Amino acid sequence: MRISARNRLKGTIVEVTKGATTAHVRIDVGGSVVTASITNEAVDELGLVVGGEAYAVVKASDVMVAVDD
Amino acid sequence: MRISARNRLKGTIVEVTKGATTAHVRIDVGGSVVTASITNEAVDELGLVVGGEAYAVVKASDVMVAVDD
Amino acid sequence: MRISARNRLKGTIVEVTKGATTAHVRIDVGGSVVTASITNEAVDELGLVVGGEAYAVVKASDVMVAVDD
Amino acid sequence: MRISARNRLKGTIVEVTKGATTAHVRIDVGGSVVTASITNEAVDELGLVVGGEAYAVVKASDVMVAVDD
Amino acid sequence: MRISARNRLKGTIVEVTKGATTAHVRIDVGGSVVTASITNEAVDELGLVVGGEAYAVVKASDVMVAVDD
Amino acid sequence: MRISARNRLKGTIVEVTKGATTAHVRIDVGGSVVTASITNEAVDELGLVVGGEAYAVVKASDVMVAVDD
Repeated sequence: MRISARNRLKGTIVEVTKGATTAHVRIDVGGSVVTASITNEAVDELGLVVGGEAYAVVKASDVMVAVDD
Repeated sequence: MRISARNRLKGTIVEVTKGATTAHVRIDVGGSVVTASITNEAVDELGLVVGGEAYAVVKASDVMVAVDD
Repeated sequence: MRISARNRLKGTIVEVTKGATTAHVRIDVGGSVVTASITNEAVDELGLVVGGEAYAVVKASDVMVAVDD
Repeated sequence: MRISARNRLKGTIVEVTKGATTAHVRIDVGGSVVTASITNEAVDELGLVVGGEAYAVVKASDVMVAVDD
Repeated sequence: MRISARNRLKGTIVEVTKGATTAHVRIDVGGSVVTASITNEAVDELGLVVGGEAYAVVKASDVMVAVDD
Repeated sequence: MRISARNRLKGTIVEVTKGATTAHVRIDVGGSVVTASITNEAVDELGLVVGGEAYAVVKASDVMVAVDD
């Protein structure tokens, strides 16, 4: 499947924390760590575990830009 | 100002394209290029220009995770 | 690629309208028509044209629920 | 109330799972099941229960498009 | 229609700017002005004009929190 | 840090509820109360407590507009 989302950062999963319904998955994408908040169900379905390869995927309209003061 | 958004990737602006109301800003964050779709007004207010330093900022709940088949 | 986004509705593209930077793509997903606002660039990259098959993909945290009064 | 969100898919609630703060509500919208991640508080306020009629509502800028490889 | 989105701020429309596909609508919600980026089509369908009453509606998962340094 | 997000409503925190991974923070922004769903981790990092000053921050593309029937 190819998707319209413009941003796909490849990396390695460094943490998976499941909550009651929502999980946090942290992916090291070349030095920076990106945090994703997704459903527990998606974690199970994709078999996300620490050490696995994964992409952080973000739609362009969900990216903000900031600058230092 | 400090913000709750978990993801801040620092980089250099490589492209700024203004549309009628919506602009696309591309930031090279260490090899990968992240595309942000923001208002023209924000581009002006922050003074975003090619070559400038900027952060791509994303709320954790807007990050998805993908894996190769 | 498999993605964490919970919602994938398969259908047929019934309209593609490009703006200056942002395009609207309408997909008939079995009677209902879903509108997606994505970048022009994604339209080109995925080769989206009227009559083509496509999925509307939505992250669960972007879905609201409404009821009639 | 009428809202700008372009996408409203009518269906029947097939599952309501409350977490500590976040609930998952699944709505069958004519064959496909859509998952919404909303607050527990909204579930209570709207009286969402299995078997009830409800709409899955999504802003156009939160819809992505995907195609098969 | 009642909706799960937690945040509804009532105000008066002070600006409507249509682009090629995306419009910006500004609503004065008691002193502060909130900017919404929505489709041109929604502006037409809801009949949004300067001086009209409207609500800015935001899903809780789309709200970030910031504090001064 | 200055950010592209168009909407910043200043107020006072009136409630902080932590869940397993996701917290709800309520901010009184001049009469209206805005609910933010953010990570527990952000609550800790920013030191968000009831009575503290904070901003509700929202990207323009995450704001919808509604009108009364």
